Amino acid sequence: MPPVKVLNKQWIYAKRPNGRVSSEHYEMREAEFNTELAQNEVLIKAEYISVDPYMRIQQAERHSFDAPHPLGTVQGAGAISKVVDSKSDGFKKGDWVLGYSGWQLLAKCHANDLTKIDTEAAPVTTALGVLGMPGRTAWFGLMEAGRPKPGETVVVSGAAGAVGSLVVQFAKKAGCRVYGIAGGANKCQFLTSKLGLDGAIDYRQFHDADSLSAEVQRLTKGVDIYFDNVGGMITDAIIPQIKLRGRVIICGQISQYDGGIDTPNRGPRFLQHLLFQRATIQGILARDYTHRMSEMLEIVSPWVRNNEIVFEETIVEGFDKLPDALNSLFEGANIGKLLVRV
Amino acid sequence: MPPVKVLNKQWIYAKRPNGRVSSEHYEMREAEFNTELAQNEVLIKAEYISVDPYMRIQQAERHSFDAPHPLGTVQGAGAISKVVDSKSDGFKKGDWVLGYSGWQLLAKCHANDLTKIDTEAAPVTTALGVLGMPGRTAWFGLMEAGRPKPGETVVVSGAAGAVGSLVVQFAKKAGCRVYGIAGGANKCQFLTSKLGLDGAIDYRQFHDADSLSAEVQRLTKGVDIYFDNVGGMITDAIIPQIKLRGRVIICGQISQYDGGIDTPNRGPRFLQHLLFQRATIQGILARDYTHRMSEMLEIVSPWVRNNEIVFEETIVEGFDKLPDALNSLFEGANIGKLLVRV
Repeated sequence: MPPVKVLNKQWIYAKRPNGRVSSEHYEMREAEFNTELAQNEVLIKAEYISVDPYMRIQQAERHSFDAPHPLGTVQGAGAISKVVDSKSDGFKKGDWVLGYSGWQLLAKCHANDLTKIDTEAAPVTTALGVLGMPGRTAWFGLMEAGRPKPGETVVVSGAAGAVGSLVVQFAKKAGCRVYGIAGGANKCQFLTSKLGLDGAIDYRQFHDADSLSAEVQRLTKGVDIYFDNVGGMITDAIIPQIKLRGRVIICGQISQYDGGIDTPNRGPRFLQHLLFQRATIQGILARDYTHRMSEMLEIVSPWVRNNEIVFEETIVEGFDKLPDALNSLFEGANIGKLLVRV
Repeated sequence: MPPVKVLNKQWIYAKRPNGRVSSEHYEMREAEFNTELAQNEVLIKAEYISVDPYMRIQQAERHSFDAPHPLGTVQGAGAISKVVDSKSDGFKKGDWVLGYSGWQLLAKCHANDLTKIDTEAAPVTTALGVLGMPGRTAWFGLMEAGRPKPGETVVVSGAAGAVGSLVVQFAKKAGCRVYGIAGGANKCQFLTSKLGLDGAIDYRQFHDADSLSAEVQRLTKGVDIYFDNVGGMITDAIIPQIKLRGRVIICGQISQYDGGIDTPNRGPRFLQHLLFQRATIQGILARDYTHRMSEMLEIVSPWVRNNEIVFEETIVEGFDKLPDALNSLFEGANIGKLLVRV
């Protein structure tokens, strides 16, 4: 078969944001794409592309957990794709696959960098959600760093988000009293009605950490585990409520990503409270547990299959919408995992 | 023997400090003291009385690790005393004992609340230092919360103090590269010359966290374990230098005790850095390890006996000087353990 040239579309990360990331920091590139494959390569076409808060961290100038995302390259991202052509025995046309192929319609990947998705087992989109990176982060972050015990009190910030909405459910299954912090009545309703939490707090109703802290105290009577996706004022409010030998898991600090990464914002010092309570804080990343994915899947996949867990998704339509969808994460627009269908 | 009335002297905690504690927050009380003992009671006369930074925490209005120290009562403190009279089989006149008898010359204690000091094994004052509460804090804080590995880099704030000067030596014995932060050239000289550290930084030479941080980076090339007795600007400077899977041990926050406990000061947010490095912070208190004292003594007592460890002391003369001695801790006047000889 002679090489075929088709048109590909890519979103190029073009300009570092100082504050909020938006479409002005990206450029759409359309270019001819040579579909010829080398041995062990697979040609894929994206169907669902991920937008995640960590992308904003990598756009900062400082070295975070990685070097800064290079300018002038395709925005990195997880994607669920269909195989268009394959020179690997492991994949055939029509297979659904998960890979880190970024914000582009077509990609050539080495077979080693793709994972086949079992479409019988669960909806394909779960590979970017409850059975993928967010699920792994929620599961190991809570279970390994949090070590929940039945009867303990768990508070989760960003509780209606991709990771938070799973953490709260895993904590309920562990026998904990679970409270979610989220922005807006709609999300709080989701947390208490649909996820069955013991309570939810709309942080937007509170204008300072002290009043929010008082509400956390009133509702929870003290916090054993705080799973933090947000940071800032919400964390300022919760840390004083941490009980003896409490555990704080830092999974994200989304409130700080609009500029607080390169130049930290200021907030109340709290290390003395950790001292008094002999509490711990631990930062975790999804990649710390990649090699242990099968442990999580063995437990969580049956819950997905048997509808024992809610895996909410917000799906934005259109490849053109990727930068706007990323931006909307920082507006708190989504419930559950945010995906773009292309 | 008929009851004998003698004169006792006590320092009464009389007034809550807002900022720095000083003699104005204490009242000296002299009163007749009935020396008659009940069964199992022991009459002791203090010889060395302790002053420790935690006393200032208990003087704050808020509940810290304990309820606030009650006003109008003898200042609580560890003391090394001699037995004057005894109605316990376990103690006889002339024995040296350790107890929590506070800032007073004479006390009647239940035999259960006293520990006999073996005067052959080590100088009696070590019972309030390297073989006592500060030693226990240093040992278990570093070994259990820090988990040092040979070749790792350890930084200690308050490195010339009662706890810090032991932590740095324990870390050297664990095979680590060890750097101390202290105030003044004299203390830094002590750290490098007498304790053999790999380096010391006089934080008073730096007027902001960024310049101090740059010096920490230049000297250490990154920090695996940070043992923090001080907090504030020093901690602001060191946290950005914490390496992957680093461990921060919060043993004290002495820079915050002059008022930052009731109303926290503000400083740069750093939880995102913990996230990127997947580092941990853990608060520890001496009392967490009281039941494991024998484990520490089994290892550290021979080091004391064989002069393998430096246990520096600063001794202030005179019962009258107790409030001033406590105050001087917050001026950073002492090297090693600060004691008052009465």
